[in-house]
Amino acid sequence: MQSTALRFKAEGKTIGLVPTMGALHEGHLSLIRKARIDANIVVVSIFVNPIQFGPAEDLQKYPRKLVTDLDLCEKERADFVFIPTEEEMYPKGFTTTVEVKGLSDVLCGAYRPGHFKGVTTVVSKLFNIAQPDLAYFGQKDAQQTIIIKRMAADLNMKTNIVVLPIVRDTDGLAMSSRNVYLSQEERKTALVLPKSLKVAESLIRSGERRAEVIKGRMMQLIQTRPGVRLEYIAVCDSEQLQERETVQPGDLIALAAWVGKTRLIDNVIV
Amino acid sequence: MQSTALRFKAEGKTIGLVPTMGALHEGHLSLIRKARIDANIVVVSIFVNPIQFGPAEDLQKYPRKLVTDLDLCEKERADFVFIPTEEEMYPKGFTTTVEVKGLSDVLCGAYRPGHFKGVTTVVSKLFNIAQPDLAYFGQKDAQQTIIIKRMAADLNMKTNIVVLPIVRDTDGLAMSSRNVYLSQEERKTALVLPKSLKVAESLIRSGERRAEVIKGRMMQLIQTRPGVRLEYIAVCDSEQLQERETVQPGDLIALAAWVGKTRLIDNVIV
Repeated sequence: MQSTALRFKAEGKTIGLVPTMGALHEGHLSLIRKARIDANIVVVSIFVNPIQFGPAEDLQKYPRKLVTDLDLCEKERADFVFIPTEEEMYPKGFTTTVEVKGLSDVLCGAYRPGHFKGVTTVVSKLFNIAQPDLAYFGQKDAQQTIIIKRMAADLNMKTNIVVLPIVRDTDGLAMSSRNVYLSQEERKTALVLPKSLKVAESLIRSGERRAEVIKGRMMQLIQTRPGVRLEYIAVCDSEQLQERETVQPGDLIALAAWVGKTRLIDNVIV
Repeated sequence: MQSTALRFKAEGKTIGLVPTMGALHEGHLSLIRKARIDANIVVVSIFVNPIQFGPAEDLQKYPRKLVTDLDLCEKERADFVFIPTEEEMYPKGFTTTVEVKGLSDVLCGAYRPGHFKGVTTVVSKLFNIAQPDLAYFGQKDAQQTIIIKRMAADLNMKTNIVVLPIVRDTDGLAMSSRNVYLSQEERKTALVLPKSLKVAESLIRSGERRAEVIKGRMMQLIQTRPGVRLEYIAVCDSEQLQERETVQPGDLIALAAWVGKTRLIDNVIV
């Protein structure tokens, strides 16, 4: 993959990379479509990255749908699908980490220690392998996009990070490969999460600026659904991820919650 | 520098990078000469990297000789000299680190905590900025070369790491920008370090294989010079830096020692 990428670069071609863990949904496809418009060469990577999963997390049961994924990549006219094995990515003796300190320890990072270090390490590898001019990420993983932008800037990576909006199902739930874990009942329950973000937006539109009030009203709503265990709601700036007392334009409202055994995240930029 | 490098890459040119902290000596020049032979475009970087110095180390007094350095780079026909400021390399909010765990904690790393993390972070940045196909390092910094090779392999960097032999002054002392710190008397004293490596080589040539015996004989010699405070002598393999009981072909014998207020390192591959 790297030698192919370097050959295209020596011909002056632009490369767009869409890094994924597979089980592709409309969110991923929106990234591939944008890459297809922007870049000469479109690479989709599919790799369920073990080092970004905690020991008690869902690495084993994470959905794998390679045949469908390849079909979707072909339909979206990706030029290459890069599917390395764990042994290729992390051979014996592998010991290097790329870490964005601080930003990786808050929000989801506080509940998933080591997760973002795993993400930044694998993304560094994928960038070096596929040599992208542009790399595409979904806004659903808001903290991930902020961390990757910081890493790319700090390490002077040549890759421009493109973040595209959350794609939602018709019922409002943010698309996620993990949604397949939800029972029909759990899925209905989960809808309270995007609804709580709508409440926040509507409060802000009507003039509310106090983060405590906004978070309070979101929690109130979420508590009407006993099947949801809230992990966090954060109102923070969208660069340093510092909690706000007073909401500012461009701020991030993000949440994580468990619905049954499924961990869901969602967010909005206000 | 990056946009210049990317333009050359898009034309199919090869780039050779010689990363330095300036105060160039014959060791550095041997790297530039090799780059000049190997690559279409030769970039020398000069940056005294603050994050690889400990708080009690010689960042402030580290020799700076920019005018002479530029003259030498021109004589050796480098195409570009990249001289960033600290603020350009580490702007406000900088928080990303690249780290090679394990290898960075032994030998010099045990005495200079954080040093190699500073090295791998800045080298990652320089590689992304200068986009080298080849990067040149001196064998004098043996552990550094091993760590950088590991980093480049682990993170799938496109850059090939080229390591060139130690260049020694006529008296046998390994070339180092820090040698200017030595008084005439200290310099004579310091010669016991390369001599001790000669003793090790000669012992091995005559059949000795026991690391303890070899290190013992080296220490014996070094102790005849009261002006030398030995930090470590290591006999180890030259990939994992694991200490050996029995020397093997290709092993590294490395040492660090203080002569007055100057810390010197030297090594040999046997």
